[in-house]
Amino acid sequence: MKMILFLFSFIGVFPLNGCPIKNGLQDFHMGTFDKIAKEVAGYSDVAQKIIDLAVNGKAQNRSYERLANFTDTVGSRLSGSKNLDSAIQYMYNALKQDGLENVHLEPVKIPHWVRGEEFAMMLEPRNHTLSILGLGSSIGTPKEGITAGVLVVHSFDELHKRAREAKGKIVVFNQPFVSYGETVTYRALGASEAAKVGAVASLIRSITPFSINSPHTGWQDYQPNVPKIPTACITIEDAEMMARMAHRGKKIVIHLKMAAKTFPDADSFNTVAEIIGSKYPEQVVLISGHLDSWDVGQGAMDDGGGALISWEALSLIKDLGLRPKRTLRMVMWTGEEQGGIGANQYYNLHKVNISNFDLVMESDTGTFTPLGIEFTGNGESRAIMKEVMKLLQPINVTELADRGEGTDINMWMEAGVPGASLHVDSSRYFYFHHSDGDTVTVQNPIQMNLCSAVWAVVSYVVADLEEMLPR
Amino acid sequence: MKMILFLFSFIGVFPLNGCPIKNGLQDFHMGTFDKIAKEVAGYSDVAQKIIDLAVNGKAQNRSYERLANFTDTVGSRLSGSKNLDSAIQYMYNALKQDGLENVHLEPVKIPHWVRGEEFAMMLEPRNHTLSILGLGSSIGTPKEGITAGVLVVHSFDELHKRAREAKGKIVVFNQPFVSYGETVTYRALGASEAAKVGAVASLIRSITPFSINSPHTGWQDYQPNVPKIPTACITIEDAEMMARMAHRGKKIVIHLKMAAKTFPDADSFNTVAEIIGSKYPEQVVLISGHLDSWDVGQGAMDDGGGALISWEALSLIKDLGLRPKRTLRMVMWTGEEQGGIGANQYYNLHKVNISNFDLVMESDTGTFTPLGIEFTGNGESRAIMKEVMKLLQPINVTELADRGEGTDINMWMEAGVPGASLHVDSSRYFYFHHSDGDTVTVQNPIQMNLCSAVWAVVSYVVADLEEMLPR
Repeated sequence: MKMILFLFSFIGVFPLNGCPIKNGLQDFHMGTFDKIAKEVAGYSDVAQKIIDLAVNGKAQNRSYERLANFTDTVGSRLSGSKNLDSAIQYMYNALKQDGLENVHLEPVKIPHWVRGEEFAMMLEPRNHTLSILGLGSSIGTPKEGITAGVLVVHSFDELHKRAREAKGKIVVFNQPFVSYGETVTYRALGASEAAKVGAVASLIRSITPFSINSPHTGWQDYQPNVPKIPTACITIEDAEMMARMAHRGKKIVIHLKMAAKTFPDADSFNTVAEIIGSKYPEQVVLISGHLDSWDVGQGAMDDGGGALISWEALSLIKDLGLRPKRTLRMVMWTGEEQGGIGANQYYNLHKVNISNFDLVMESDTGTFTPLGIEFTGNGESRAIMKEVMKLLQPINVTELADRGEGTDINMWMEAGVPGASLHVDSSRYFYFHHSDGDTVTVQNPIQMNLCSAVWAVVSYVVADLEEMLPR
Repeated sequence: MKMILFLFSFIGVFPLNGCPIKNGLQDFHMGTFDKIAKEVAGYSDVAQKIIDLAVNGKAQNRSYERLANFTDTVGSRLSGSKNLDSAIQYMYNALKQDGLENVHLEPVKIPHWVRGEEFAMMLEPRNHTLSILGLGSSIGTPKEGITAGVLVVHSFDELHKRAREAKGKIVVFNQPFVSYGETVTYRALGASEAAKVGAVASLIRSITPFSINSPHTGWQDYQPNVPKIPTACITIEDAEMMARMAHRGKKIVIHLKMAAKTFPDADSFNTVAEIIGSKYPEQVVLISGHLDSWDVGQGAMDDGGGALISWEALSLIKDLGLRPKRTLRMVMWTGEEQGGIGANQYYNLHKVNISNFDLVMESDTGTFTPLGIEFTGNGESRAIMKEVMKLLQPINVTELADRGEGTDINMWMEAGVPGASLHVDSSRYFYFHHSDGDTVTVQNPIQMNLCSAVWAVVSYVVADLEEMLPR
């Protein structure tokens, strides 16, 4: 999940989000709604079959096992890397072998940034090796590294107030963690803000509420017409220690060496598989996760899980011999972590058919215990989705929360297409996010069974309703 | 905290532990007890003063700030290291400057093991760098490293059953975490058990219930007459991944390089400060933590906090102008992590005066939210301690749990001296234990204020009672 500031782009675009359903039902004849509600209720047997297969049946634990096999075999999958190429090839073969339809790859150009060797050591007031992870798109240091004094600040405000102290320094941001959406601004903009006041590098406290001296990487954005300086994340522990040292008046000196480099954009692919619709094959319910990850851990949570339950949803439907009226299209995106690159190119290519996109779905906040879905759409479609969620009563996952979210589906939602994201208990998500802790260990087969069931029931039922969701 | 298997050595030695108080009171005249209970209750004003000073007064946050200053300045403090020498010198000066009495160092010979460079890479089924920490006392590998196939086992039983597969292999132990006391056996004995069946190295899953790909080091024990093989801990994540790979029938090959080396024992010191008793100066209440740590993180939790609240207890008593009848002796032990080396030498030297040791106390499971104390002693002394704990009602820390514990005080308790350890909410202790996550960040000034108050009230009151605790 990239999720830089996108939350802010939502508000105001969908004034109906979060409003009581009735507001949206003004022109939605009660008779029509009753008919659809009855139609949805008619899927309770099918929903139960899907749930049984996913949770207790032959498909039990399959999404987890596929995830483990995939990520153990391939490892992490950074945009532009050989590992990502292998991952796409692996998935293409696996989807073919699973007997899904229209399995194909859609070419995309994606960023190719390489971390290279990196190293940071505090030289004063004492020698101490810092755990760092360079941030995506950062430039490297000169070959001999950068050795400079440190200015520790806790906010952009403090940086601006102390601008005169920053020249020639390495700026350390020790901002408190408020929420990912708010605090990630420091990772995204810290380097350019520091460069504006003459800093030679910036080190950002990792965007996480909890740490075992764990650095968390992620994308950062150089601003136009601002000098580019090297930037990396450091751990909460080291950021806090340097803040204490600075508060005591100690001089801090750091030696930073980073061989990070950006290469020309690389060839990659969005990976697609379908169950082709029986009645309206040109109409699409799109279900997705992203296949790329950061170059740490295994990318099992971000977003192996989302990709794998999307595949699993199609497998479950196929295994039951079901074929919805509309086409169920599964996409595993590429280059999400660099700003939804694969998904944006997909949108630009396919938006000509936007009226055929019934619902776009993405899972990208972990496949932990599911609570329901987050949904963006008008009041009528929200009322229908509420009925759909009732089908998940047998596993008690019925919540219909506000605001579908996902770097890869936001543009569709902003253009008016109903969108849904998997709503899970993500309380520990940011403990592991973009760190070496993002591995199969944090995933759980039972939780993934439930996520797969939700994903399959919602996508199948919406794809099989007689009418597309109102928008 | 070392805590290898010592829990087992207890049971049976103190049959009275955990028994209802009445059992121990058979010969304890009720009149005597009532008198002591009244005497203890008379300390409520003094206890309140100590609490006020520690929690709300001028000394508020002092133990935390001293801890932060100390560990930020010195860093980690491995037995035999220059850092440990600096730490002892730092403390000696600080205790002198604080105006404590009889500040002195008692010479001790301690192990001198050096980690050196270390590196482990999985070569098959794919390249993957393992996060490792060599275990204390491990030998190194040959200079060129060891490259060998892997046998993954989940228990000693499985190792013995599959003994024939172990020859020439690197044995990976992926034992589940049950409890530290039980599971640490794998860290302690894994290398020798693997060597007995012909393994060339062993890698032990870190002894922790939670991980962000974090290796946890610790001491290990080569058994006599068994070949010594290099041994390191790996992360839960890597241990589980290799177990999955092995289960799928994949061949795993690891390249391991460790430059670990043991040097002749080094000179070190236990650090001592006192408030000399006014009436029975030869009688002692001993209050302690250990100053050494592992060579990762800052040793802030294990056991900077314990050492610092012990100092703080004396400071609080001194600042209030109090002087107990008996001597209050604070000891910061050296070489605890190698098996209570400093404390054992202290015991052997001072046990000749064992009858003068009234109570021995250690804090070594973190200075988190205190719940009370854990106590080892007979029924009479337990009854008295229960009264003492009532003095901590104002901060609601009154629990008197069973079994005082601490590598550094166990021998005194086994010889019949009453012993107490600080009882805290240690639910996250092993998340950070012996890892780079053991830093000031996991400590909290408010919690440390409370711990200091408990430590000062208990030690002062027991040292000032007219009679020593019955034993």
